[in-house]
Amino acid sequence: MPTGIVNEMELLSKNINELLEQKKLFDIKRLVNDLHPADVAELMTFFDRDNQVVLFRLLQKDMAIAVFEQLDFERQENLLNSFTDDKVSEILNYMSPDDLTELLDELPAKVVKKLLYLLNPDQRNMASLLLGYRENSAGRIMNPGYIDLKENYTIAQALERIRKLSPPEDMIYTAYVTDIQRHLIGIITLRDLILSTPEKKVTEIMDTDVVFVSTDDDQELVARNIQKYDLLSLPVVDHEHRLVGVVTVDDAIDIIEEEATEDIHRLAAIQTTEDEYLHSTVMQKVRNRILWLVALLLGGMVTSFIIQNQSALIQTVVSLSFFIPALINTGGNVGSQSTSIMVRGIALNEVDSRNIFKIALKESLVGSILGGLLGLVGFFRVLLLRESSMIGIIVGISIWVVVFVSNLIGIIIPLFLKKMKFDPALSATPVITTIVDMIGVFLYFQIARIFIGF
Amino acid sequence: MPTGIVNEMELLSKNINELLEQKKLFDIKRLVNDLHPADVAELMTFFDRDNQVVLFRLLQKDMAIAVFEQLDFERQENLLNSFTDDKVSEILNYMSPDDLTELLDELPAKVVKKLLYLLNPDQRNMASLLLGYRENSAGRIMNPGYIDLKENYTIAQALERIRKLSPPEDMIYTAYVTDIQRHLIGIITLRDLILSTPEKKVTEIMDTDVVFVSTDDDQELVARNIQKYDLLSLPVVDHEHRLVGVVTVDDAIDIIEEEATEDIHRLAAIQTTEDEYLHSTVMQKVRNRILWLVALLLGGMVTSFIIQNQSALIQTVVSLSFFIPALINTGGNVGSQSTSIMVRGIALNEVDSRNIFKIALKESLVGSILGGLLGLVGFFRVLLLRESSMIGIIVGISIWVVVFVSNLIGIIIPLFLKKMKFDPALSATPVITTIVDMIGVFLYFQIARIFIGF
Repeated sequence: MPTGIVNEMELLSKNINELLEQKKLFDIKRLVNDLHPADVAELMTFFDRDNQVVLFRLLQKDMAIAVFEQLDFERQENLLNSFTDDKVSEILNYMSPDDLTELLDELPAKVVKKLLYLLNPDQRNMASLLLGYRENSAGRIMNPGYIDLKENYTIAQALERIRKLSPPEDMIYTAYVTDIQRHLIGIITLRDLILSTPEKKVTEIMDTDVVFVSTDDDQELVARNIQKYDLLSLPVVDHEHRLVGVVTVDDAIDIIEEEATEDIHRLAAIQTTEDEYLHSTVMQKVRNRILWLVALLLGGMVTSFIIQNQSALIQTVVSLSFFIPALINTGGNVGSQSTSIMVRGIALNEVDSRNIFKIALKESLVGSILGGLLGLVGFFRVLLLRESSMIGIIVGISIWVVVFVSNLIGIIIPLFLKKMKFDPALSATPVITTIVDMIGVFLYFQIARIFIGF
Repeated sequence: MPTGIVNEMELLSKNINELLEQKKLFDIKRLVNDLHPADVAELMTFFDRDNQVVLFRLLQKDMAIAVFEQLDFERQENLLNSFTDDKVSEILNYMSPDDLTELLDELPAKVVKKLLYLLNPDQRNMASLLLGYRENSAGRIMNPGYIDLKENYTIAQALERIRKLSPPEDMIYTAYVTDIQRHLIGIITLRDLILSTPEKKVTEIMDTDVVFVSTDDDQELVARNIQKYDLLSLPVVDHEHRLVGVVTVDDAIDIIEEEATEDIHRLAAIQTTEDEYLHSTVMQKVRNRILWLVALLLGGMVTSFIIQNQSALIQTVVSLSFFIPALINTGGNVGSQSTSIMVRGIALNEVDSRNIFKIALKESLVGSILGGLLGLVGFFRVLLLRESSMIGIIVGISIWVVVFVSNLIGIIIPLFLKKMKFDPALSATPVITTIVDMIGVFLYFQIARIFIGF
């Protein structure tokens, strides 16, 4: 199954398509129920909405719930719309609380209200509780179904309780010891339980130095803690330090991926959404991009204004205008390189503002060297275009200065945003480019004036 | 410890600094040995090289090894250089094989040869074996220390074996059933073992539908499988389907993060390295960036050449030159948006070339709408700069056309690279910008000629 998955999935989808045409539903049923739920969820992407519903109806109950949890939101919504209330409540009541919250999160408030009536009281209370926490907070993404042990348990009793609860794979390997007020006082892994003698007390072998987060903490902090401490699950406590849920490592992977996507999109000046590419409409796509583009175009017009003010100089030395694009692009490229390095460095905690002077000094050097080399290349390239060596010198020196300045701007803006508690990725490449353009053409004409004596 | 970690670390580092000055080494020793190894590793980033060595010497043996495994490569190298051979071999012989391989990977061949002599025979064989696999392959990053069970074991015997091996937390929760030739025939989780009756055979409860990878598979596929199937560890088999190692979920997180960093850097036209920002020298930084910058500058000079060919037109209508930066920047911004969306979509498997026509059609619509809106904004902005409405119309229409074309180019190049089996992220934003510039100014002058009748 694993290597070259996509190709196998494509083959499988073709097989199923043929079987669908021949109405051999029983064969399809046997085929899909043998797969891993994650594979069935992927298989769904190969079919249109109607056939997704047909396929889903062929799944056995446990499989259906596991597949449903793995589908993306648009496909979940499509299925819910095509089912009877009975079928909907059957699925929703067996979903794990964190996946259910994620789904309800995405649906319109009106639909959520309707769906809440289809839940059993336990599931409904759980969903309302989790939906009460701030978006992207630990409370919103946690699963309240952890294993709790009492202080006075022996190892044998602890194992007995775990067997009785028999939680799923992702929740079973860490148990939490709580006192009477449900305060988190220690953790104990299934590893330690089975390596220990049954008569010992859990308090003897538990680890009291617990890493935890609070319900208000951001999901990124949750994921970073799981990554840093190599945890399988991380406990979440409320304001009174009472244990209320856990976040598991599989969620941490998805969060880290989501945050990287957000950074990449922000760096390209795109408003972040959680829509998958293929499932957002044309107007959604336009909306996510237009605001930044208009702002940047208006910003870019400042550059036009600066050039307009130099029209007399351009009329006299037309060739000055030829090199504006090469000059500002080089500035933009250097700036986007240094911004990306800095934004990623900050995200990975490799860089922070306590080193700001050391970084600025180092980058000044990097900028000077890069600028010097590029200026030389620019100088010779201008001569090759049969322009005067005077123009070559102006272009060469301008490139040097602009590269130096752009490099520093690309470093300083993300660090500044970070210090002001904004997301450093907001110093998107296009923003840097627009700023660098203005400074670049301004410096270019000043340098030209010095050499031409205009 | 967890919330607001950086601040706590900063405080702690200041405390330790004071204690260092007062030579109160015993107090420091008690302080650091009480921390989580991941925290000590982070704490190290606050100290200079010499003090890192002092701190490290204060760690108890187990702690020292755990901390060493978590340090980045530069700090590991620094410590190794300052230790005696005895101390070096003490650390290296107790490192987990995957972390050791990662370290040896980074060191110069000469140093590796010397270090291999300091390893005990087992560890040396292990390291040589792993280093024999291709870089970034499953074989290179796997840990050969898995739990193997024989087919005829009972559950009680299986648990007995696990207790005897007592592997660390990340390796204990999944056991692998192999036949006499070490072929992987099934997996069994510790969950299933403890929920089952002791008399049963492992073959009765094992899962034979195993997700696995081969030693040659790329680390990205490894991580994607762990993520997709929500695994705690993924078995790696050789060409004869014999089990040779496992990769654990904590490694998958790091791989996914590493791949995201690589994409972000490639998108900004930076050669990828695994150096941390603060630990690469000025010349390394210059080397990682200069090649692309020179290539792009030379590419950008083609745009200068195109404008040069229009010098007669510019001399007549100087104001045409004012709007070149705004025009090409808008094109560049749109292109970098669509490239980033596409590169990330491909990385997350949301998009692939089987949908290429559907995507192109949708993006044509998106491009037309974005271009129309931006063209209008551009038109009015030109009028505000007191230019003629003729110039306004030329700029407006040019923006429209350029946005449409840039958007499509930004989509098509990554899809094309993907189809040709290159990394889509090589269609870096600056590359798109340079291509868009050339096409943009060419179209601009053609449109101007039509309206001015030059």
